Amino acid sequence: MSDLVTFGETMLRLSPPDSRRLETASEFEVCAGGAESNVAIAANKLGIPSTWLSKVPETPLGRRVVGELRQHGIETDVVWSHRGRQGTYYMERAGKPRGATVIYDRDDTAISTAKAREFDIDRVQNATVFFTTGITPALSSTLRDTTASMLKAARSGGTTTAFDFNYRRKLWAPDEAEQTLTKLFPGIDVLIIAARDARTVLGFEGDPRQLAHKLGSQYDFQTVVVTRGSEGAVGWHDSVVHEQDAYETDTVSKIGTGDAFTGAFIARRLHGDDVPTALEYATATAALKRTIPGDVALVSQEEVEEVVSSGGSELSR
Amino acid sequence: MSDLVTFGETMLRLSPPDSRRLETASEFEVCAGGAESNVAIAANKLGIPSTWLSKVPETPLGRRVVGELRQHGIETDVVWSHRGRQGTYYMERAGKPRGATVIYDRDDTAISTAKAREFDIDRVQNATVFFTTGITPALSSTLRDTTASMLKAARSGGTTTAFDFNYRRKLWAPDEAEQTLTKLFPGIDVLIIAARDARTVLGFEGDPRQLAHKLGSQYDFQTVVVTRGSEGAVGWHDSVVHEQDAYETDTVSKIGTGDAFTGAFIARRLHGDDVPTALEYATATAALKRTIPGDVALVSQEEVEEVVSSGGSELSR
Amino acid sequence: MSDLVTFGETMLRLSPPDSRRLETASEFEVCAGGAESNVAIAANKLGIPSTWLSKVPETPLGRRVVGELRQHGIETDVVWSHRGRQGTYYMERAGKPRGATVIYDRDDTAISTAKAREFDIDRVQNATVFFTTGITPALSSTLRDTTASMLKAARSGGTTTAFDFNYRRKLWAPDEAEQTLTKLFPGIDVLIIAARDARTVLGFEGDPRQLAHKLGSQYDFQTVVVTRGSEGAVGWHDSVVHEQDAYETDTVSKIGTGDAFTGAFIARRLHGDDVPTALEYATATAALKRTIPGDVALVSQEEVEEVVSSGGSELSR
Amino acid sequence: MSDLVTFGETMLRLSPPDSRRLETASEFEVCAGGAESNVAIAANKLGIPSTWLSKVPETPLGRRVVGELRQHGIETDVVWSHRGRQGTYYMERAGKPRGATVIYDRDDTAISTAKAREFDIDRVQNATVFFTTGITPALSSTLRDTTASMLKAARSGGTTTAFDFNYRRKLWAPDEAEQTLTKLFPGIDVLIIAARDARTVLGFEGDPRQLAHKLGSQYDFQTVVVTRGSEGAVGWHDSVVHEQDAYETDTVSKIGTGDAFTGAFIARRLHGDDVPTALEYATATAALKRTIPGDVALVSQEEVEEVVSSGGSELSR
Amino acid sequence: MSDLVTFGETMLRLSPPDSRRLETASEFEVCAGGAESNVAIAANKLGIPSTWLSKVPETPLGRRVVGELRQHGIETDVVWSHRGRQGTYYMERAGKPRGATVIYDRDDTAISTAKAREFDIDRVQNATVFFTTGITPALSSTLRDTTASMLKAARSGGTTTAFDFNYRRKLWAPDEAEQTLTKLFPGIDVLIIAARDARTVLGFEGDPRQLAHKLGSQYDFQTVVVTRGSEGAVGWHDSVVHEQDAYETDTVSKIGTGDAFTGAFIARRLHGDDVPTALEYATATAALKRTIPGDVALVSQEEVEEVVSSGGSELSR
Amino acid sequence: MSDLVTFGETMLRLSPPDSRRLETASEFEVCAGGAESNVAIAANKLGIPSTWLSKVPETPLGRRVVGELRQHGIETDVVWSHRGRQGTYYMERAGKPRGATVIYDRDDTAISTAKAREFDIDRVQNATVFFTTGITPALSSTLRDTTASMLKAARSGGTTTAFDFNYRRKLWAPDEAEQTLTKLFPGIDVLIIAARDARTVLGFEGDPRQLAHKLGSQYDFQTVVVTRGSEGAVGWHDSVVHEQDAYETDTVSKIGTGDAFTGAFIARRLHGDDVPTALEYATATAALKRTIPGDVALVSQEEVEEVVSSGGSELSR
Repeated sequence: MSDLVTFGETMLRLSPPDSRRLETASEFEVCAGGAESNVAIAANKLGIPSTWLSKVPETPLGRRVVGELRQHGIETDVVWSHRGRQGTYYMERAGKPRGATVIYDRDDTAISTAKAREFDIDRVQNATVFFTTGITPALSSTLRDTTASMLKAARSGGTTTAFDFNYRRKLWAPDEAEQTLTKLFPGIDVLIIAARDARTVLGFEGDPRQLAHKLGSQYDFQTVVVTRGSEGAVGWHDSVVHEQDAYETDTVSKIGTGDAFTGAFIARRLHGDDVPTALEYATATAALKRTIPGDVALVSQEEVEEVVSSGGSELSR
Repeated sequence: MSDLVTFGETMLRLSPPDSRRLETASEFEVCAGGAESNVAIAANKLGIPSTWLSKVPETPLGRRVVGELRQHGIETDVVWSHRGRQGTYYMERAGKPRGATVIYDRDDTAISTAKAREFDIDRVQNATVFFTTGITPALSSTLRDTTASMLKAARSGGTTTAFDFNYRRKLWAPDEAEQTLTKLFPGIDVLIIAARDARTVLGFEGDPRQLAHKLGSQYDFQTVVVTRGSEGAVGWHDSVVHEQDAYETDTVSKIGTGDAFTGAFIARRLHGDDVPTALEYATATAALKRTIPGDVALVSQEEVEEVVSSGGSELSR
Repeated sequence: MSDLVTFGETMLRLSPPDSRRLETASEFEVCAGGAESNVAIAANKLGIPSTWLSKVPETPLGRRVVGELRQHGIETDVVWSHRGRQGTYYMERAGKPRGATVIYDRDDTAISTAKAREFDIDRVQNATVFFTTGITPALSSTLRDTTASMLKAARSGGTTTAFDFNYRRKLWAPDEAEQTLTKLFPGIDVLIIAARDARTVLGFEGDPRQLAHKLGSQYDFQTVVVTRGSEGAVGWHDSVVHEQDAYETDTVSKIGTGDAFTGAFIARRLHGDDVPTALEYATATAALKRTIPGDVALVSQEEVEEVVSSGGSELSR
Repeated sequence: MSDLVTFGETMLRLSPPDSRRLETASEFEVCAGGAESNVAIAANKLGIPSTWLSKVPETPLGRRVVGELRQHGIETDVVWSHRGRQGTYYMERAGKPRGATVIYDRDDTAISTAKAREFDIDRVQNATVFFTTGITPALSSTLRDTTASMLKAARSGGTTTAFDFNYRRKLWAPDEAEQTLTKLFPGIDVLIIAARDARTVLGFEGDPRQLAHKLGSQYDFQTVVVTRGSEGAVGWHDSVVHEQDAYETDTVSKIGTGDAFTGAFIARRLHGDDVPTALEYATATAALKRTIPGDVALVSQEEVEEVVSSGGSELSR
Repeated sequence: MSDLVTFGETMLRLSPPDSRRLETASEFEVCAGGAESNVAIAANKLGIPSTWLSKVPETPLGRRVVGELRQHGIETDVVWSHRGRQGTYYMERAGKPRGATVIYDRDDTAISTAKAREFDIDRVQNATVFFTTGITPALSSTLRDTTASMLKAARSGGTTTAFDFNYRRKLWAPDEAEQTLTKLFPGIDVLIIAARDARTVLGFEGDPRQLAHKLGSQYDFQTVVVTRGSEGAVGWHDSVVHEQDAYETDTVSKIGTGDAFTGAFIARRLHGDDVPTALEYATATAALKRTIPGDVALVSQEEVEEVVSSGGSELSR
Repeated sequence: MSDLVTFGETMLRLSPPDSRRLETASEFEVCAGGAESNVAIAANKLGIPSTWLSKVPETPLGRRVVGELRQHGIETDVVWSHRGRQGTYYMERAGKPRGATVIYDRDDTAISTAKAREFDIDRVQNATVFFTTGITPALSSTLRDTTASMLKAARSGGTTTAFDFNYRRKLWAPDEAEQTLTKLFPGIDVLIIAARDARTVLGFEGDPRQLAHKLGSQYDFQTVVVTRGSEGAVGWHDSVVHEQDAYETDTVSKIGTGDAFTGAFIARRLHGDDVPTALEYATATAALKRTIPGDVALVSQEEVEEVVSSGGSELSR
């Protein structure tokens, strides 16, 4: 039985090596990446048994994705589908002023047809925390219903619900996202949201402290975490706001930083830490993630502890 | 102005290195591959100016495909589209008894919406030969109409029409293919078809000589070429059947062998060779292709001549 | 709960690419390989839930091994150790007349200290089959006792015991192996042994049919399988001998072929097949394994079925 | 018909991966690079149809170079030669304090024998701009005459002549360069020159503004651009000097930065921009180039616009 | 006859590419690395004929190590052993806050049994300088005796003895190191030590100047060099302390920086430089090393001169 | 002091991976290759101390070549030159019917200016055997004189002279080769020549036995070896002809097979073997070479013994 159950799509990520361009690529590095499995992995690395639920095509590509997630240690409980594609995305790394490029190729995927009744809802209701993100309902109208049903089932089973807003402008328009996601808010206990999304999608104003406070008060969340990219995060809980600065990093890959943060935050809360402590570990995990290629936070608890206690390690031999 | 104009889809091909499995792949080799561009490239390598027509997404992936085709020397004349995906396919190499695996991911591509009126039909009508394959009408109902229209336009402009039957069971059922493609036969001058397809899709019986003869007589083609995989080919022309054995090869990649054959056959016919000579060059080009990784026949005229004249070269220094 | 539980060491395998030499290698390909986990994976791929038991160092290298085994789909139940090395082996591929080279570096490993009481013996006793090989007792005197204890525990729990003789001359002398392993024979139900080992280690004479018969009669095994390398296998069961020829293969990697055979044999027996049918599937799985780089049989049940029914597949698209 | 025609040598560039040393390299990355084709590609990426003229050996190496340039989208019009080598250069990347190393291996190349009469001079005279650099006349005495003839032909056909001074100390001595190149100045409309070259080769003094002014006045150019490495550029036109600062970049490869600048400057001038605007786009294109491995500016017009308008993009998804 | 003879272990280093993690590595880059051979190579690159003494297994792995050292130009004089492993170490690169990770796998190596009498002691006594480090006696008790014997033999032959303290906490405890190494001090002429080791292992206090002075006075060394990581070094000689700042570097690999420093320091002293000049060259060599992947300082004398004279080179072509 | 001294050019070899084409290569594998150093390495691997003499550019490329030869264990004694290129060659692997392609780029190399007086002729005269090939005098007229002088010096110092005819049609015409090389014959003791060269260059007729006999009688050689490619060799000595069949091989790389043969033949003769035994070892070494990528025979004496005694090894573990 897992303490954390997450639900969402995981894609095959295809990236040219280094900072080469898609336009002339002669090879792609391949890895699995998706917000909900990234979060499950990060939480698992911090000692929380975690399971990822999804619907995946019964093809070598689908098995490729599930195999990698198992390699990273989490449990997977997937509906194998004979219809629908495996979602992919193309990712091109780049420094300033080019900026990384993402091309989604995730239409008509197996998961886009996933209905709540296809999953073993006991797994969700027996978990301590259920987690999904704003990406899932953006993928299809079926998934909007499924997301709502699963959040509802979780709540009714006494499971805490956590949700990362994760607005993706390449998937839907801000107003459509706003309408869809705010409808889900009453069923959510813990909201994680980027300050940028709070402003541009939900129309809130103010600094991250103010955003956290306004969101928490207006929607009756238990906890709200507002992330500020490379500048740390703010947590609102019991009407109190806590700030956490980011750690200095030599960034290798930004992708998955937010998921590492969220997974670690949930994990430490499940271990019983208070919000400020959980924010500290979450920020440390996010900093470590940035030094690691790929989508997932391949960290150990000891490494996170070391960053929290001393800001990171030197070459040790 | 090109002597040969071809029309069809070219995909991005993604292959794990060597004979590794998709299920555990951590990198993909990337190249462009599609029957119609493969044919144009092979013909071009044998000295026939060739152009490939297509509809391609205006994305780095679409530009990736077009760039590679230009690198191989042909002209490209594409409709750039802001809708529709870039088709891809996953290819896993394997020896006996595993057998290579192909997974198509080519639904909802840009080309599936291509209409004849989007192309500069003068290019087709000013060419000496227009070529497409049975894959194109298999991709969408729109493309069935488009293929028919373009063959018709070519014929009405005095352009010879050549067509490779190329049945793909992962795209459509045999009876659907049979109904669709035989309707196109009256507009086709030169048919290339695998003996296997003549039997299992069109229901003909007999050895390749008989298949060629029956097809030629029944449908009033100018020329029919029946290919026999690694055992050579048979050509029917002016009611005479010509046989050509295959050359011995150290096979590195089978994919594209038929296209190399067809491109070279068309090229040599355009150079004025008779059918038996063209079959000989076509078979030699196919043999060379099998020694080359990827989809396309990166050969030179000199190399083909050398195979025809002496069966191939030794290490020369 | 797993139907098959295996116990043994899995090493990190380090190989120069292609057929390059260790002596000048500038990179190593890395994968996990060990007879007992290879067998578990092959059985799992054929539909039998399988678990691998072992003792592994609590280091990135130990986690590397376990992660890869999980990726391949099996369950792992390992004792994490703070003492002892991760075993490695260097493997150099080569064609004739060079021959592949293996250099073991597996002294003082974590597993060499593994005692039966460190493992949850219920897992063994609740399984339908318990499997280990002659490599395990070759690794340390502690492991000789552990192997004996675990076979005994399995038997007493009603679990069928299967054992691959797997003599490794780089680990011990023939007479030492003979003395140690024949002492284990009374606790073994199913013996798999190479004809070569039956001759040079156990001193039997005759063709594989005779070897199987003599072994089966003399030691009161339930089933004996004598393998003949690339020439198939012979099975002895209920005093009847069954022969199975090998399938033709384009061999990419011989290592793990025997384990693929054994895993598939056990799996099909667990599915209820009789010995001749299980030998057929085992031989087909071994043939597929030879087309796959690395130690493990990354096959699917469908692929094995296809080899059994038609001798393997052609390029299909 | 191309708006921009360039003439010069393009070499095969051989580089050890990352920052490895030539002295121990076991592999080389291969790409095509040459100032004049780099400029054509950059201009073409910014929407100006461009053609590169050259003389190239009729070998796989010569075809390799031409194929890559075609892949990047430009037209190539080359004299295929049966005599003379393909020029190569070895490039070793390095950070401070090592500094990148270039070893030229470009003696006795095919292009070193190129005479003006070998080229279709109409292509030059029908272009809007003809471009070459100070590297071309440094390669052989034949090429000194050829460069002079082609500039003269361009001018007489009403084509604007643009010239990048590009002094290369590994090709010739400063005084030889100074004597040769200043003789060409009367035939040049637009001069691009590094401040360093203006000082050490031509003996001018002062800051870049002063250098631009002195050069412009003394030699009666239409336009002079003085580049200042990573500190931007200065443009002199109609007796007015315009300054442009450089954009901040995460530099991956400096080589080709100047060519990206020049190609973009010419392209924007051809689109009708005034000098300050063209300098802005040129600087933005140069900044993007620095994020891209290899010699050429694989950019899109949209990317350049985004840098000009907002200083570059963040990760967008 | 070599001017510098060094003695110690050289390992095979196995590193995942880039900043990937050991835990998921699918390939390792392989190189040879060991403090004493690194020092010999650096000195040799600066023009001092150098020889490395060691005991190495007579296996492809041992030959791999020796071959690479010969490639880098030094002489090797090794005792080939049929017992004992080749030492390896796993190295994971990482930026802040992760920090590089080293896992030693160097127990039971061939060298751990090396006795002084196995070596041709004339080689040591005929050298001008004999060098080893604090790593050697940390490897086995046999090597403690061997190190002492060789230092003694060197001294008695009139050879200057140089020693890098090189404390490795993964090999032994500080107090054990302190007791062992200070016993060797009377036989050492030139000590190189990190400020950190002087403090945490030897218990000295103060800034590097003070550390150098205290060490020099207390133990009667001829010369003491205290290194300060990326902040340069301090040299004490004839009771005078000299400071040298570090050069700015774009660091690619820190490993081997200290050895590059030490090798260059010894080389320049052997060329007759005074201590401040030798420190300058040593610091320049260390700075160059940081730009080079792997363990060894693949530099040329010209490059070092250029850093000393001008702080490093720009792209030159 | 070396028993074998060889003299000749060693090139940098650049090859696309696998069987890819030069025309589209994006990377080259790099290694050193030259007949005379290949022979020295093969002899050295079989236990004969060997030295290679040459003239090499004082550049990273020249040092790259020398470093690799040292890595393979031989001594190098080179004249470092500040003029002249490092010779390179491009090699494209291919199976039937394509055939491997070699493109030489070895004009104006440093070695082409090498004069006998630049070398320490004592090294030649103190060796037991001096070896060079017909490639050396093909490289320049200076080298024709140098080759003659060195053979003469060797003879006058009592050193046995061995010579591989090695005709290269890409370097010179048959008649030019014939005139030049037969003039050297009186100074040669041991001639190795391919049957093909004996026929097409020297105009002899007959089977290899006859060729050996005719050559031996006509030119008064001590020993003549006629090689028959993959069909073994024939040795003539003391008017007796000995035949040796080739071993069966899985060929990975043909290049360097002849040099492996010759190096081993010389080595075994120096060890005191008679001609038939030396032919057997030479053929075994050549067979092993064919399993090894690159130009050189990275074999061990044990491996050669094993092929001679048992025809090669199986996987051993």
